Parts: sequence; structure tokens; C-alpha cells
Amino acid sequence: MRGAFFDEKLKIRDDCSKPVPGPGEALVRVRLAGICATDLEILKGYSGFAGIPGHEFVGVVESVADLGGELVGQRVVGEINIGCGSCDCCIAGLSNHCRARQVLGIRDKDGCFADYVTLPIANLHPVPSSISDQEAVFIEPLAAAFAVLPHLHTARETEVLVLGDGRLGLLIAQVLKGAGAVVSLVGRHTGKLALARQLGIKAIMSEELAGEKEYQFVVEATGSPAGLVTALQQVRPRGVIVLKSTMAAGVAVDLTSAVVDEITVVGSRCGPFAPALAALAAKRVAVLPLLDTVFPAGQFPAAMARAATPGVLKVLLDFC
Amino acid sequence: MRGAFFDEKLKIRDDCSKPVPGPGEALVRVRLAGICATDLEILKGYSGFAGIPGHEFVGVVESVADLGGELVGQRVVGEINIGCGSCDCCIAGLSNHCRARQVLGIRDKDGCFADYVTLPIANLHPVPSSISDQEAVFIEPLAAAFAVLPHLHTARETEVLVLGDGRLGLLIAQVLKGAGAVVSLVGRHTGKLALARQLGIKAIMSEELAGEKEYQFVVEATGSPAGLVTALQQVRPRGVIVLKSTMAAGVAVDLTSAVVDEITVVGSRCGPFAPALAALAAKRVAVLPLLDTVFPAGQFPAAMARAATPGVLKVLLDFC
Repeated sequence: MRGAFFDEKLKIRDDCSKPVPGPGEALVRVRLAGICATDLEILKGYSGFAGIPGHEFVGVVESVADLGGELVGQRVVGEINIGCGSCDCCIAGLSNHCRARQVLGIRDKDGCFADYVTLPIANLHPVPSSISDQEAVFIEPLAAAFAVLPHLHTARETEVLVLGDGRLGLLIAQVLKGAGAVVSLVGRHTGKLALARQLGIKAIMSEELAGEKEYQFVVEATGSPAGLVTALQQVRPRGVIVLKSTMAAGVAVDLTSAVVDEITVVGSRCGPFAPALAALAAKRVAVLPLLDTVFPAGQFPAAMARAATPGVLKVLLDFC
Repeated sequence: MRGAFFDEKLKIRDDCSKPVPGPGEALVRVRLAGICATDLEILKGYSGFAGIPGHEFVGVVESVADLGGELVGQRVVGEINIGCGSCDCCIAGLSNHCRARQVLGIRDKDGCFADYVTLPIANLHPVPSSISDQEAVFIEPLAAAFAVLPHLHTARETEVLVLGDGRLGLLIAQVLKGAGAVVSLVGRHTGKLALARQLGIKAIMSEELAGEKEYQFVVEATGSPAGLVTALQQVRPRGVIVLKSTMAAGVAVDLTSAVVDEITVVGSRCGPFAPALAALAAKRVAVLPLLDTVFPAGQFPAAMARAATPGVLKVLLDFC
């Protein structure tokens, strides 16, 4: 099968082995895959991953190993963490934090930048027909945006500052607005801020961000350590910063003000697929405005280069 | 009156002006004052404070400006934050975070390294006769230790790792143990760890700290940025780190693992006096084992030098 194989460097191959689903797994024919910032990091070699990258996809179940026969032929998206099921984290219901977890295209598990991918059927979610393929590829990052919501306690009427006008920031801003929050999005890109405004979100250029310690909730989704510095300046005493950006290794931030102002800084990674699917099906979140380009799978290097271009939103790979 | 006056450098003076209590304030004759790590920082000039430092004390109310006449002659301790009463933080019940706050001996308010100090009567707490002067000076840091408790949700049977065997770490460990937590204290000083064991607390040399990601709750009270690095290694996924150390300016920590493991890092500063007074009165916390030396007030420089000596616990100044 076709696949992008990474082992210190990237090779586009036509002879990747078609994966064989193990017990409890399904074999999924990939239709569309999305390129995420994490993929760009992986292809720089930061994570030590070797294999097929890619973790955002929509596909059709081709076969199952044993259970889940009713899924065959269904269009699905998939959660990316695979827990061992027996460690303390899995037993505590935190399989996303399993100490021996595999993560699709990120850790010890071949991903979806290929014609086929396998995942446990427990990870798969059927996609309603009201959601197109191009929309469905956004479910995984949209779920990550939904992971912010529980940290707000109550969203309705709550003023929230979202830092970062990239893909994730634009999704988070929509999710919070949909839940009733009063959202201000801060970014550095005129075009993306204009897009935010088209989506009904108040958008502010970062250099126009006035005042300090004004927001009870700040969501940091800039992808840069400087975002946390700004968040610490903008959050109210006793406020909450939800930290979505994984910082580049070795870059660091002074937390003195977090102690003095008794700030809560809470890290947030993957999120729940069900509300993301429901929001897309009900058209409460618009993802297609975040789509930049769809490349044929054969143009993988060009797609990666496009995705790495500053200011570019979502780039997809078409495996059909 | 006698007082330690700091303005870029420290002068011990006999001619400091005796303070005059303003409306709602009391004049307190200082009996004993404690030296805190924050005082050592202030005398290095880091905070820009000018005036009389010192914020841990026990004294006797000599007079009041108007209200609170029943306090005259009473032995008291005092909360150190003075809110304006009208800003958004004060109105929200967070006067400790008042945007225009004065802080005793720390910000815009002369402190207690002097014969007399003034404070709003609302800040004062009478000290029961069962608590000695030497014990009462520990109320302020003990209250800061009690500020950790609400972050545990439930303390009973909860395993907590306390990092730092200094004054604050030893107080926090006792408070948590008293609330039913299963506490392990980590430090670098054989003598202090032996003291912790005498107080019934499991104590571990830092180089013997095995395992990783084992604790749902970690309290960071080392006073060093390295403490947060250790905390991030020791906390379980989705766990909580309570951050008590104000880091030295410019020192910084990489928070990548806080995002990946979805850790909550919550800053904690001052705490409630009432439970601290109750715990001391009921002998549920032992503070006298943390006392190093009591210096006569006239030996202020020697006392500061002693307090700055690595490994030394609490140093007091006697103004009687």
C-alpha cells in the first residue's frame, strides 16, 4: 500500500505492508487525512517516532479481526490513544494517559498517512452522513478543543481570552462561544483574525491587547512559550490558564506570578469525540473555513511543505 | 522607636518614627518577629520595597484609632494583605489579591521589624493563652501551609508528596498529615528529615526518590525552580502540583510534560489564620521544633545572617 514512512528521514513508499488488524481491531481504508503541527514536529525527529505518521483521518472500515462486524462498511473517525487496559491509569479511567500507551502515528503505532490503518474498534466512532469527509477530518482536533470546556466550570456568560489564531485557537474559540462564553481571540495574522470575525468571534491583534489581569479564563493555544507569558499577564488573580501548546523542548517560562496571583495552570491534550461529532452534525462549529488545501496522497512532500508554511490553516491528504 | 529600615541598603535605627494608626487601624507593640525567606529576598533589593520589612509577628495592641477598642491590651497576630476594599478583586472577596494592596513589610506598608507596627483591626486575630509567643510567630507561615489543603479536595488517605524540608515544607507536611493525608516529605538535609520523622512524617532524601508519576498531589515548597522539575516528574497524569515557591526572577521551567500529562499546577501564597490558630491551640501542629535561634532585636544583622545560613530553620527577633 501507499504510505509515508518516517525513520529519521521521510520516504514515500508504494510498498508499505498493509496492516493486519489484531484482536479487537478494525482495518480502516483511509479516505482523507489531516496534517497537524504535531506531525511537523515528528518529521523533525523530536519525538523519536519511527513508522507511519498521521493521526487525523476519516475512513471506511474494511474488516474487523473479531468483534464489531457491524462496523464493516461504515465511515469512521478514530481516537488516537490506545491504552493497555491494565495499568493504574487505565483502571482509573484515564486510558489516554496509559503508561504504556500507543498513540496513532505518534508513539509505537503506525498512523494514517497511508492507504490503511488499524485501530481498536473501541476507538472508532461512526460518522453521521450529515458530516462530510472534509469536515470529519477535523473531529480529532475539534475534540481537543472540547477538552477545554470542563475547565470553565460554567461557560455561559464567562469571559474567556483565547490566545492563538491558528487551527486549534479557531476551533477552541468556536467551541467556547457555542457553549455560551464571551470569547476574545488574540492573534498575529490579519487574515485569520478576519476569519474569526466571520465566525462571529471578537478578534484582537496581539499588539492591541490592552490591560492586564482582566480575564478569569485564558486558553493558551499559540504553540509558542511566549503565549504562556502573555497568558500570565492577562489572567486575573485566582484565574485559570488552560495550556494547550506543547512547548518546544528546553524552552521555559518563569512562573513567579502564578504563585503570587495564585493562578491555576492546567494542561490539556486530547478530548472527547462525541461532543465534537454532535457539534459538527448540528453545524454549531464551522470547520471548512479552516481548510487550506487538499493534496492527492501522492503529493505528500508538497502537502507537508504547505502545512509548514507560516499562516497556513488545515492541509489534507486525499487517499481516495 | 527601634526599627530596621531598608532603602537599597539596611540601617538599624533607634529613631524610626512611631507609626500612627489610621482610621480602622490598631497600633501594635511588637513582642516577637520572625524572619522569612521573603525578607531575605527583600533585603537583596529584588522587590523594590523601601521601608521597614518584616511580616511575621506577635504583639500587643496598644491603641486603636477608632473602632476595635476591645482589642486594646490583647495579644494578636496579623494578616499581612491590606485591600483597598473597592477594586474588582476586593469586591469578589479576594482582598489578598487587591490590585492596589499593601502588604505588611513587603509592599507599600511598613512591617514588623520595629517596636511598633500598625494594621487594620480587621487583619488582627487575638491569640489564645494556650499559644506561646514563640509559637504565635509561626501563625502566618502556618496559615500559608493551610492554604494548600483546599487543593486536595479530600485529604484523608490521599498520598501527597511534599518537596522541600525547609520551614514551609515541614509546616505543610504537618498540616496535611493532620488532615489525614499520607504524606511523604522529600529534602536534602539529614537533620531536617530526622526532625520530620520525629514529627511522625515519612521523610525521604531527594536522591532516594524512586519511581516517577506516582503521586496524585505534589506540593512544591523547595524555594528552587528545580523543585517544579521534580514535581513534574513525580506527579501522576491528571494530578495536581501546588506551587508554593516563588521562583527567583528569570528562572524558568519547561511545562511540556504538564500539557502531555494534563497536570494542574496551582500557585498558592497566603492562607487563612483561623485554622492555623486552632491547630496550634490544639497542639495538632508542632512549631517549636522548627525554631533555631531567638536574637534580641538589637542584633538584627546577626539574626539576618543566621536566617540566611543554609539549613537554618526559623530565626526570631525579640523586641520585648
